[in-house]
Amino acid sequence: MKPTRREVVASLAVAGFAAALDPVTAWTQETTPALRVNADRLRAHLEALSVYGRPAGGSFADGVSRTAYSDADVPGRQYVMGLMRDAGLDPRVDTGGNIHGMRKGSDASLPAILFGSHIDSVPSGGNFDGDVGSLGALEVVQTLQEHGVETRHPLHYVIWQNEEGGLVGSSIAAGELPASGLQRVASSGLTVEQGIRKIGGDPSRLAEARMAKGSHRAYLELHIEQGGNLDKAGIPIGVVDGIVSIDEYDVTIRGFANHAGTTPMPERRNALLAAAKLVEAVQQIMTAEPGRQVGTVGHMEVSPNARNIVPGLVKCTVELRDLSDTKIAALGERIKARAQQIASETGTTIEMDKVENDPPAMATPEIQKMIENAASSLGLKTMHLPSGAGHDAQMMARLGPMGMIFVPSVAGISHSPKELSRWQDCANGANVLMHTILALDRT
Amino acid sequence: MKPTRREVVASLAVAGFAAALDPVTAWTQETTPALRVNADRLRAHLEALSVYGRPAGGSFADGVSRTAYSDADVPGRQYVMGLMRDAGLDPRVDTGGNIHGMRKGSDASLPAILFGSHIDSVPSGGNFDGDVGSLGALEVVQTLQEHGVETRHPLHYVIWQNEEGGLVGSSIAAGELPASGLQRVASSGLTVEQGIRKIGGDPSRLAEARMAKGSHRAYLELHIEQGGNLDKAGIPIGVVDGIVSIDEYDVTIRGFANHAGTTPMPERRNALLAAAKLVEAVQQIMTAEPGRQVGTVGHMEVSPNARNIVPGLVKCTVELRDLSDTKIAALGERIKARAQQIASETGTTIEMDKVENDPPAMATPEIQKMIENAASSLGLKTMHLPSGAGHDAQMMARLGPMGMIFVPSVAGISHSPKELSRWQDCANGANVLMHTILALDRT
Repeated sequence: MKPTRREVVASLAVAGFAAALDPVTAWTQETTPALRVNADRLRAHLEALSVYGRPAGGSFADGVSRTAYSDADVPGRQYVMGLMRDAGLDPRVDTGGNIHGMRKGSDASLPAILFGSHIDSVPSGGNFDGDVGSLGALEVVQTLQEHGVETRHPLHYVIWQNEEGGLVGSSIAAGELPASGLQRVASSGLTVEQGIRKIGGDPSRLAEARMAKGSHRAYLELHIEQGGNLDKAGIPIGVVDGIVSIDEYDVTIRGFANHAGTTPMPERRNALLAAAKLVEAVQQIMTAEPGRQVGTVGHMEVSPNARNIVPGLVKCTVELRDLSDTKIAALGERIKARAQQIASETGTTIEMDKVENDPPAMATPEIQKMIENAASSLGLKTMHLPSGAGHDAQMMARLGPMGMIFVPSVAGISHSPKELSRWQDCANGANVLMHTILALDRT
Repeated sequence: MKPTRREVVASLAVAGFAAALDPVTAWTQETTPALRVNADRLRAHLEALSVYGRPAGGSFADGVSRTAYSDADVPGRQYVMGLMRDAGLDPRVDTGGNIHGMRKGSDASLPAILFGSHIDSVPSGGNFDGDVGSLGALEVVQTLQEHGVETRHPLHYVIWQNEEGGLVGSSIAAGELPASGLQRVASSGLTVEQGIRKIGGDPSRLAEARMAKGSHRAYLELHIEQGGNLDKAGIPIGVVDGIVSIDEYDVTIRGFANHAGTTPMPERRNALLAAAKLVEAVQQIMTAEPGRQVGTVGHMEVSPNARNIVPGLVKCTVELRDLSDTKIAALGERIKARAQQIASETGTTIEMDKVENDPPAMATPEIQKMIENAASSLGLKTMHLPSGAGHDAQMMARLGPMGMIFVPSVAGISHSPKELSRWQDCANGANVLMHTILALDRT
């Protein structure tokens, strides 16, 4: 049995202890190290949320398709807003469609500590990506609430809308949604503009959803790793160094479409042969030096794409990621140079254009340290790693200090119904988030 | 001015010449070496046919989309049937939709000499593939008709339907259309069954369109080369050795789709990387030994085909062609063996199944010799070459002797609006066809 706040405050008063501290703060510092989230309740909430977008006739293990703005997203959001009310938060939807809940702090002059994640999924996704961070963060609020723990800073809980469609909600909050962003078609088939209306926002007043730079103490996000590093190493908590920089290229390879029966091999200008050499070049160049950099040709379209025609045109993508943007820029230049050699070897032309460049979003060292300490105080080992995936946290890094906590994904599988994080790992992550918030609150 | 038959017969009678021959045969042997088709009329007919399926607002140079059973195919066929009547033929559509015209010979006991081609095109094709052979052959009939040349053998002119969709009409005539053939969807969007009805055939009575083995003296087909060999060599007439054997494979490469940002390079099971290595292997193995063999990966589908996902599945085709079926069978085995190495290098599985095997169709040496002699008598150089493309002639090779005459395609371009054969080459081809028919008639 833990003492209640009333009992502790009374005992402190009796002992004449901690004269420099107000009784509430003193109680908090004494008691909170033992605070733990309710792991069973977190699991129950994750299981309950999973029904919104579950495949017909399926179970939790069959994953979820709760794409942003879909008919599953709307009741899923309603469900979470109900949980927010249970945790003492009064949910508010901003004009961009993000859901917010504020919990007052004892010192109204302090900026809020912001934390949360998203609950939209990719089509045929899993029940952990976004959900663990969203419901883990809510579990933190509910735990503080039921133990009567008051923080000095206000706590600002947030659910970002349409993370999977390109960090849409957090981009709106950061004032980074491009002009064309509202017309983008989401996985649900609606445009972002239509979607925002459907979930209770107002796309004509997006500026009202912007958050000012420096308006919060820090942003924290708990998320599954979506890679296999923690699982492979057997380490329960990842301290994210930062979110990688991404360079995206569109590649157009032009050869000459010709009859596959009548065109001798030496006369061909085969765009697919050039594309094949480019795929191998990306692999070779990206693995030729040490480091965690990755390079992917994920999309390819062949034209005319007929069994009996030498391909005349190939369009494909090249995507490079690393924490160092100068490193991927240099690697991209090497791939471009190799592409020109391939073009001349194959009688094709290759255009390779950089179409997007996301800078890296580094986690604040001070916050990384707090996450490490929180984990350590809970007896949990940590490992530093970059996030190879994009997260709403990268938008929030533009507004103030940022930190991310990762928990293991079994076998590194994500964006798949097979995505799995163990319940204990989910609870560990929420506990680390809670104690990082409490540590931040003391600063 | 050439003498008319009447004049020649009279002069022969006066001279008491060629006592052993009947006057008509004597006249034919004397006069026909000088016979030539009307090159201008052939050109005019090719230009007139090109309007059926011409792109809106286009010209002859913009090519044609007269796909089988389309709304362009039907009036195109009507146009050719009109030309047949002009040439003294009475067009008849068989139950399979092929168009026939018979011209009597002087000896009713002899089998017909069969010749013709097709007038359907690929989508966005050219005005020479099929058309040169069809209208060139009709020009031969009209030339014989207007010069009053009577042959001993009946002449059987034919337009095969839907050559481009898989030799459909000639397969019906050879009894080789597979049971599933009627349900195949043609480029026009109709099934073959619907298409045959549309062009005046009766798919319920296809057996009536079969031609018996040995029922004709030989089949001859004039066609554009569709490759660049004749054009490159500057030789006006190709004597086809045979139509190549084709082995078609379907390939399925299974890796594991995973997040392109969070999956380290060494952990990937990248199906597209394996496919790239396979494309290069096909190129390397097919060019490693001398010969005219060709190998093509023409079709590829990548799944899930997203910029930010390591491809988990690739389906592609491999097509191998050569006159020697044992050669391509052996090369196919080498590619399969290499595919297994690639699978183990990339952590994927590769299935490679032979889904079709067309045997080669060799041209009859006797007929090849007659084509050579006919060209030589016209002062035209010849070159022997295989046909890398399939033709209706390969179906006819199953029923009796077969020969094919090729004329140059400029730069080897075909199945393209840019397809071009010079008018003189078209006329040369028709003249060689005519003199080959006349030589055959003398046997």
